[in-house]
Amino acid sequence: MIKDEKSLNEKQLIREFFSDVGSAYLADQDIILGVGDDAAVIKNSKNQCSVLSIDTALSDIHFFSDMDPSDIAYRSVSISLSDLLACGAKPSWFILSITLEETSIDWLSKFKSGLEDISSEFCIPLIGGDITKGPLSITVQVGGYTSESDIIRRSTANDEDLIFVTGSIGKSFQSLLNYKEGKGENSSYTRPSLRKGVAPKLNGIASSAIDISDGLFQDLNEICKLSKKGAEVYLEKIPHPFGDDLDFSLLNKGDDYEICFTAPKNFREKISQISQEENVRISEIGKITNSNEIRFFNGKKEVLVGLDGYQHF
Amino acid sequence: MIKDEKSLNEKQLIREFFSDVGSAYLADQDIILGVGDDAAVIKNSKNQCSVLSIDTALSDIHFFSDMDPSDIAYRSVSISLSDLLACGAKPSWFILSITLEETSIDWLSKFKSGLEDISSEFCIPLIGGDITKGPLSITVQVGGYTSESDIIRRSTANDEDLIFVTGSIGKSFQSLLNYKEGKGENSSYTRPSLRKGVAPKLNGIASSAIDISDGLFQDLNEICKLSKKGAEVYLEKIPHPFGDDLDFSLLNKGDDYEICFTAPKNFREKISQISQEENVRISEIGKITNSNEIRFFNGKKEVLVGLDGYQHF
Repeated sequence: MIKDEKSLNEKQLIREFFSDVGSAYLADQDIILGVGDDAAVIKNSKNQCSVLSIDTALSDIHFFSDMDPSDIAYRSVSISLSDLLACGAKPSWFILSITLEETSIDWLSKFKSGLEDISSEFCIPLIGGDITKGPLSITVQVGGYTSESDIIRRSTANDEDLIFVTGSIGKSFQSLLNYKEGKGENSSYTRPSLRKGVAPKLNGIASSAIDISDGLFQDLNEICKLSKKGAEVYLEKIPHPFGDDLDFSLLNKGDDYEICFTAPKNFREKISQISQEENVRISEIGKITNSNEIRFFNGKKEVLVGLDGYQHF
Repeated sequence: MIKDEKSLNEKQLIREFFSDVGSAYLADQDIILGVGDDAAVIKNSKNQCSVLSIDTALSDIHFFSDMDPSDIAYRSVSISLSDLLACGAKPSWFILSITLEETSIDWLSKFKSGLEDISSEFCIPLIGGDITKGPLSITVQVGGYTSESDIIRRSTANDEDLIFVTGSIGKSFQSLLNYKEGKGENSSYTRPSLRKGVAPKLNGIASSAIDISDGLFQDLNEICKLSKKGAEVYLEKIPHPFGDDLDFSLLNKGDDYEICFTAPKNFREKISQISQEENVRISEIGKITNSNEIRFFNGKKEVLVGLDGYQHF
C-alpha cells in the first residue's frame, strides 16, 4: 500500500499499478517473464522464447525536438533494443507508433533514414506501425528471440558475484552537455552505440544484467532489490570521461546504454577475453553482498552516494 | 513520390515512410505480414504465427481526458484488440506504454481496474510496460496467435464476394454525441464491445476483413485498394441507430470496432448461422466488383457518398 503520493517513482508505479494485471493468466499464456524486468519473455516452443520490450521517447524529455530527425529515429529504436540485449536476446523486428504535430515530408524523410540506419545495423525490419497527430512522441516495441536457459534476468544476482560494466559511464551525459552547448562530439547521446557484440557472449556467464538507462547506481540498485541482495561498489574502478575530483552523481545520470551485469568470480578470465575479442572495455567495479544495501568505496574510504538517477516522475 | 504535402493521410504516410524500412530482412525474420495490414504476423513454427498490433490513443483525440480512467483503460486496450480479432487471431497478452501528466493514485487505481476488466474478459495478462511523464497518451501493443492458413488479410477480397458488417454502424458515434451532451447511454463509445464470438468463426469463411475504426466506407475502401478491387454498397442494408433521411456520412464516422468482411456467396448460409449462434447481427451490405471504385446505391438509386472517414491528419 503506497501512502505518500510524492514518493512514487516509475518503478514503484509499475509495480503498484501494472505488475499484477491479469497475472492469473500468465502461465496459461506461456509467459515466462512479465512486468518489471528489462523485457517480457514468452515461451514459443521448447527451444525458443520471444522477448519483447517497449519504450516511449517524448520530445524534449528523452530527446531534443531540434535534433536531426534521423538521430531521433535512431536513438528511439536504440533505447528499446538496449533492453533486449541486456536480457540476452537477439533482436528480430521492431514496431513503431509515432505521434506527430504535423506531417513534414522533409522531417519524415530524415526520420526514415534514421530508421533505416538502425534497421541495417541490426538486420531487423520494421513490421508495423501507427501514426497519430499530437505532441511529438515515439513508442518503439522491439522483439527478439532467445532460449529459455539463455534469458538473463535482473533478479538472479548471487552473493559474491562480481559486478561489471561495459564502456565508459557518463559519456552520454558528457555528450548531452556538448549537445546543449552546441559544441564537440555528441554522438554518444544522439546515436548511442549498443553492446551488440558483447551482449550475446554473456549468455551462460552473466548471473544478472540490466541496461544502464536511468543511471548506473539506480540500475544496479534495481538488480540488488530484485535479487534481494546488496553490493559494494569501488568508485575508482568506474571508467568515466570526467576529470579528477569527480562529483560521483555524474556517474548516475543515465542514458549510458551500457550493460551492468554480475557474474561468478570464476568467469573473470572469460570476461576479460570477451572484452579483448570485442574491443570493448569491461570493468569490474564491485561485488554483490548478502546485505540489503549498496555501499560505495573510493579507494579505502567509504563514501555516501545517492542511488537516485534519472527520475521519470 | 508524394508531391502535395497536404494530401497525406495516415495510411499514405505509413506507406510512404514506414512500409519498406528493413524490408530486405522480412523473410529472414519469418515475417509473413508487415506494415500496412491490421496487424503484423510472424511465423513461429509450422503451425503457429504470432500476431501483433499497436495503437496509440491520445487524450482528447481518441478519448476524453475527463472520462472515467477505467473506461480510458478499457477503451485503449479494446481498440488494439479489435485489430487482432479482425486478423483472425486469438489474443494472448498485452503491453502498455503510458504517458501521464501526474501520478494520481486515485486516477491510476481506476485506470488499473479498467485494465483488469478487459484482461479478465479476454483472459490476457499485462506482460510489460513503460511509464513516462508528459501529455496523457496510452500505447497498447497486443499479441496473439493463429495458424498461417487462418490469417485473414485486408488484401485478399475476390470479385463477386459478398460484403458483410457485424452489429450496427454509427452506434459508437451516437454514443459519443450522448457523451458530449452528458446524456443517455454512451458505453458503445467508452467501452466498445468487440466481436470476440464472431471473429474466430470467420476463419476459413472470410476472404478479407478489417476492423471498422476509421469509418465503414474508408475501411472498406482499404480492403478494395489493397485487394485491387471495387465494390457496390447497398446503403439501405446497413443497420444504424439514426432515423430516416439519413446523412450517409454518419455511417462513416469511425470508432465502431465492428468487423467488415468479405466472403464468397456460398458461405451466406453459414454466416447467417454464425449470426444466430453468437446472437450478433451480421448484415450483407454489398459485393466486391472487378472495378477500381466503390459505388453506392440507396434502393435502386445510385448516390454519391464520400469515402473519407476519420482523418488522423
